[in-house]
Amino acid sequence: MIKLYDSPLSGNAYKVRLFLALLDVEYQKMPVDLRAGDNRKAEHLARNPRGQIPVLEDGEAIVWDSQAILVYLARRYGDGAWLPLDPAPMAEVAQWLAVSENELLFGLARARAVKKFGREFDLKASQEYGKSGLKVLDAHLKNRQWLAAGQPTIADIACYPYVALAPEGEITLANRPNLLRWIRRVQSLPGYVGMEGIADYG
Amino acid sequence: MIKLYDSPLSGNAYKVRLFLALLDVEYQKMPVDLRAGDNRKAEHLARNPRGQIPVLEDGEAIVWDSQAILVYLARRYGDGAWLPLDPAPMAEVAQWLAVSENELLFGLARARAVKKFGREFDLKASQEYGKSGLKVLDAHLKNRQWLAAGQPTIADIACYPYVALAPEGEITLANRPNLLRWIRRVQSLPGYVGMEGIADYG
Repeated sequence: MIKLYDSPLSGNAYKVRLFLALLDVEYQKMPVDLRAGDNRKAEHLARNPRGQIPVLEDGEAIVWDSQAILVYLARRYGDGAWLPLDPAPMAEVAQWLAVSENELLFGLARARAVKKFGREFDLKASQEYGKSGLKVLDAHLKNRQWLAAGQPTIADIACYPYVALAPEGEITLANRPNLLRWIRRVQSLPGYVGMEGIADYG
Repeated sequence: MIKLYDSPLSGNAYKVRLFLALLDVEYQKMPVDLRAGDNRKAEHLARNPRGQIPVLEDGEAIVWDSQAILVYLARRYGDGAWLPLDPAPMAEVAQWLAVSENELLFGLARARAVKKFGREFDLKASQEYGKSGLKVLDAHLKNRQWLAAGQPTIADIACYPYVALAPEGEITLANRPNLLRWIRRVQSLPGYVGMEGIADYG
């Protein structure tokens, strides 16, 4: 069975839990205690040289990095719709994956890490950078249901967690009506699962 | 003809110039004056809501973000080898694309931006984060020629620029023998073009 090296409060690990739930793929959670530093121990570094979670083990395949795991699962267990292969729609998906790795991870997620876990990042700079991402996302979703290719894709899965968790970094979503609609749309996908800290957007 | 909105000193834009050269695809450079703020003007924001370069226009397709442009070009003009589609090798490519967007962009490229352009990032933190990426890359390349899938892929193209430019951010590569060999390997690909600031690694 698939093993997911996981931590309950990681938004990056939640991307994978959410996608596995939407794909209805069974897996075993392998908790990694980040506070105890288990992610920096040799056993885990052998799985992932960056010492991070999530890591997915599926038979012989060991995949680290949430973006890479989403790609893997879409290609291995998706029906093709989650990651279209034609040049233009695939590039659209890649665009929003990049936003998730930039403004969302180094903006929204860092602001949350400061407020929730006491990490020593620049709160103000992280919030500003995160907000620049929210602005772009909200404008893009004005006349669209989904981020890319006119359908739910791994771009939505990659962007959703740290957007929905933004209030934990003291960044409001109240002024982003299109994003709020999109959040509810993601939450109504069949199989959706939430995580601790995601507010009730209903 | 393809248009590339470009700036000569951007490592992200160089990723695209390099890949277009390796693919032997003709294009027209459309310089965007970043110092004059032309990237923040309405005309450019209509192309890319993030106000960044590179942006690629290819007929009706407008693609922003270097990662997305590499994906687009590989699917549109590559022969399949640059971006394999099977789950495991595609995920391998995605892993190193993620490293290029994380440790390399927010580490190496930020350190360079401080030293070369006077940007106000935390130099020490950027250097340390960048070095953590170099360490992982160097170890991975110990017994490998290329980053992913046993062949040159867009993962190599995405990681190469800010690695090769690392010394501009006062980060040495002298202690990374596997990375230095890989740099020379990239430089010997047919069609390779360099950019200002990349030292002679011959």
